[in-house]
Amino acid sequence: MRIGLIGFGKTGRAVASILLESPNTKLQWVVRRSNMLEHRSVPEFLGIESDLPCLLYSKQELSAEELLDRYPVDVIVDFSSPSGIDYYGHAAAKRHITIVSAVSQYPDLQLVKLKRLSKRTVVMHSPNITLGINFLILSAKVLKNIAPFTDIAITEQHFKTKPQVSGTAKVIARELDIPEDEINTVRAGGIIGVHEILFGFPYQTVRLKHESIAREAFGNGVLFAVQNLYGKPKGFYTMESLLKPYFNMDVFEEGYLAETV
Amino acid sequence: MRIGLIGFGKTGRAVASILLESPNTKLQWVVRRSNMLEHRSVPEFLGIESDLPCLLYSKQELSAEELLDRYPVDVIVDFSSPSGIDYYGHAAAKRHITIVSAVSQYPDLQLVKLKRLSKRTVVMHSPNITLGINFLILSAKVLKNIAPFTDIAITEQHFKTKPQVSGTAKVIARELDIPEDEINTVRAGGIIGVHEILFGFPYQTVRLKHESIAREAFGNGVLFAVQNLYGKPKGFYTMESLLKPYFNMDVFEEGYLAETV
Amino acid sequence: MRIGLIGFGKTGRAVASILLESPNTKLQWVVRRSNMLEHRSVPEFLGIESDLPCLLYSKQELSAEELLDRYPVDVIVDFSSPSGIDYYGHAAAKRHITIVSAVSQYPDLQLVKLKRLSKRTVVMHSPNITLGINFLILSAKVLKNIAPFTDIAITEQHFKTKPQVSGTAKVIARELDIPEDEINTVRAGGIIGVHEILFGFPYQTVRLKHESIAREAFGNGVLFAVQNLYGKPKGFYTMESLLKPYFNMDVFEEGYLAETV
Amino acid sequence: MRIGLIGFGKTGRAVASILLESPNTKLQWVVRRSNMLEHRSVPEFLGIESDLPCLLYSKQELSAEELLDRYPVDVIVDFSSPSGIDYYGHAAAKRHITIVSAVSQYPDLQLVKLKRLSKRTVVMHSPNITLGINFLILSAKVLKNIAPFTDIAITEQHFKTKPQVSGTAKVIARELDIPEDEINTVRAGGIIGVHEILFGFPYQTVRLKHESIAREAFGNGVLFAVQNLYGKPKGFYTMESLLKPYFNMDVFEEGYLAETV
Repeated sequence: MRIGLIGFGKTGRAVASILLESPNTKLQWVVRRSNMLEHRSVPEFLGIESDLPCLLYSKQELSAEELLDRYPVDVIVDFSSPSGIDYYGHAAAKRHITIVSAVSQYPDLQLVKLKRLSKRTVVMHSPNITLGINFLILSAKVLKNIAPFTDIAITEQHFKTKPQVSGTAKVIARELDIPEDEINTVRAGGIIGVHEILFGFPYQTVRLKHESIAREAFGNGVLFAVQNLYGKPKGFYTMESLLKPYFNMDVFEEGYLAETV
Repeated sequence: MRIGLIGFGKTGRAVASILLESPNTKLQWVVRRSNMLEHRSVPEFLGIESDLPCLLYSKQELSAEELLDRYPVDVIVDFSSPSGIDYYGHAAAKRHITIVSAVSQYPDLQLVKLKRLSKRTVVMHSPNITLGINFLILSAKVLKNIAPFTDIAITEQHFKTKPQVSGTAKVIARELDIPEDEINTVRAGGIIGVHEILFGFPYQTVRLKHESIAREAFGNGVLFAVQNLYGKPKGFYTMESLLKPYFNMDVFEEGYLAETV
Repeated sequence: MRIGLIGFGKTGRAVASILLESPNTKLQWVVRRSNMLEHRSVPEFLGIESDLPCLLYSKQELSAEELLDRYPVDVIVDFSSPSGIDYYGHAAAKRHITIVSAVSQYPDLQLVKLKRLSKRTVVMHSPNITLGINFLILSAKVLKNIAPFTDIAITEQHFKTKPQVSGTAKVIARELDIPEDEINTVRAGGIIGVHEILFGFPYQTVRLKHESIAREAFGNGVLFAVQNLYGKPKGFYTMESLLKPYFNMDVFEEGYLAETV
Repeated sequence: MRIGLIGFGKTGRAVASILLESPNTKLQWVVRRSNMLEHRSVPEFLGIESDLPCLLYSKQELSAEELLDRYPVDVIVDFSSPSGIDYYGHAAAKRHITIVSAVSQYPDLQLVKLKRLSKRTVVMHSPNITLGINFLILSAKVLKNIAPFTDIAITEQHFKTKPQVSGTAKVIARELDIPEDEINTVRAGGIIGVHEILFGFPYQTVRLKHESIAREAFGNGVLFAVQNLYGKPKGFYTMESLLKPYFNMDVFEEGYLAETV
């Protein structure tokens, strides 16, 4: 699977390193807005051993059309900014290249553009593309479905300088129909990121907790997405839609009790 | 829904109080082995206000046939011992009464009997009939399905005098294919009961944690089971089989992203 | 040590059971406002085997002077209400009986009375007389002393129906100079009680966490207080003042490193 | 305060960055075994802006005598290996330079050498020089002192590839008289490092928990040590001995209760 990456900030670099180290993906190039580091080798810059001639380009230097003609890819992964799709969107859709956008906060206008692209190719969007957070949200929805009147409390803990309520906590709240202003927010020291969804039953408590260790988690989410989008028909996908089939219990054999006799 | 309860130990009493307080169930009687407290009013003994003439009987005093003829019920809930079904099993199946057994450790022979009864009536068995633990097991199976190579660690914490590894932790281990001897067991003070299933990803951690507060949690599990067994065809059921439909994601509307446009 | 208990609400009963079961204390009587259960045996009421002829009295029936003359005690433990000391305070001080008050919210006026009594006898007051919470507060003060600029976050979790921020959390906040309105409050289901003091350092996190299991914890705190007040000169004491000597590190041998050579 | 650093592995680099960024310390040089990167600027290598002409040297290139004559320091911080002191020990003691060794596992012979040096200068040794862990150990000793018969359980969680029980957990166990083989060890994914000391009381639980975020925590521990060793007489010190005065409760004003009247 040949991949092109848009964006080379802190998260973009972490994702690039995961894509370079995975045996299933071949990172072909990285495009960024600035022309700093232009033509520099990405694996060398990241200190990763790799034979791939994967270079950094700037948007000014090459149009997406030129880029995709010279260095074709199967998937474009976007960790840049809301305007990123204006650069590559049309050129990618024309070539039926899969688009995986992990840009976290699209204005409605850009989201409309993204959806329009999904009429022509496979498009996926996730504002938090980690497996852990997306699993948490879905399993919390299941538990709310099982026990609709249970009290739910959402807590997020992050480093002191993180300004607002975490976007991920807001998504969790929205998906569970909890008012945003009920999210418990803790800011202290250098906590990387903790999200907890607490279900308070009268006589028991269930806690679904996610702890971030490093931004590379986004890279693993991208690998999962790329693998699960492979062969899918054109359309608009989310991590939720990719994860749903894994919640279908019919794939499991019956538990040990049913097998006993 | 008219219910009869077999067993009146600590857990049996807690379950009886939940069944008495629920507007959806009418506890008709409790049968226990001993003839202590015979004919005493269950609500009065438990300090619960109720108009129900729900009395305690002993097995010696009344056969199950007599009991079920005089005081008919729709469901028998069993929190007694493995031999409990020898008392009521045949009489219940004959009358198509639903059997909910929460006896925790059946020898194979009794399990065979229970399954044979399920050819004639609705039979459900769960060694830990709480919603929380059963949800934990199923969602952990989903996450293992999503990320099969992730490290899984099971921890259970209980009061100092609890002798062995918790039966619930063993069930969790079995369902997730973890060797029993890898369960981390902590015994300290008066901890009521904590079970945690930890998924260690390279760059993130997911913790699914259950904390017991009181035995009444079993009563709420019984209410859930009774409601979800209602109208089901005869056969053998588990909490897993009752919970599975709630994991079917198709019941959910698409998340907010899909709705945007 | 002969003890008399004022107050027989939920917490009073739990404390009575601990005092009855301890080999170091002899509970002599319990006094309550209401004359319900008058002259009933306390151990029998609580289902505890005991030879002690410990009965329930009402305030109306006996003045504190009469009570203390007929049934003398060494310590009075007060779990009643702010007005409790008006009943027994003067009579106890006159007889140099130690007063341990665990009434949680005294108006200033009553606190002044309590302190005035401490000019004549040993008086101790603690609004939360558990060992765990008091240790937590003191060790948090130590850590704040070590690392004064570290971010501190206080979280408390309790059952849904608990109306306000927990009094204990407010005490923690006051002792650590944290504004009360920064306390994170979670209300969900039947959580008995969790308090956490989080110290967020730039590159590490320390969490001091207390989980309540049952009200009997107050009884163990009383036992500790009674033992540590024994032989003390008259004056006003708190759990803090009783615990302080245990923080004096000079009592410890040097750690293993110092011993090596 | 002029500092010289021995060792430039992963932890050495993290410590160097903290020392370079602190306004209270001037990192003068770093010495390492290998002559790779020789004479390279440490701030430049670490991407830190600094005017300090702090260079990397190798042991082969310069003896400690030459080094300390040309580039004098007040404190030597050692994050190298047990043999590190053979390089600088004698030369440092002769010049009354304070030695802070954070080497984690000294054989007895080297520990004897270190103590001998403490007859001539200030020497401090800590196998885990973070504030958090050392505070945890001391406060756990206090709580064990308060409640000697309480159940204590130690748990440590680390990344899957960490081979053995963590050295820090072993130190905790030794200080609390818990057999090493009772430590609960969890290995999963990329967990950086969690240590928890659980005190299980009959009716309450206290958990003292430390979570590592990054190696830079060692740098902050060094800063604390250097500041607290300043002006101390020659001798052998540990983090424990530096932290002990902070546990002396007499430095605190009485709590709010005592102040009321």
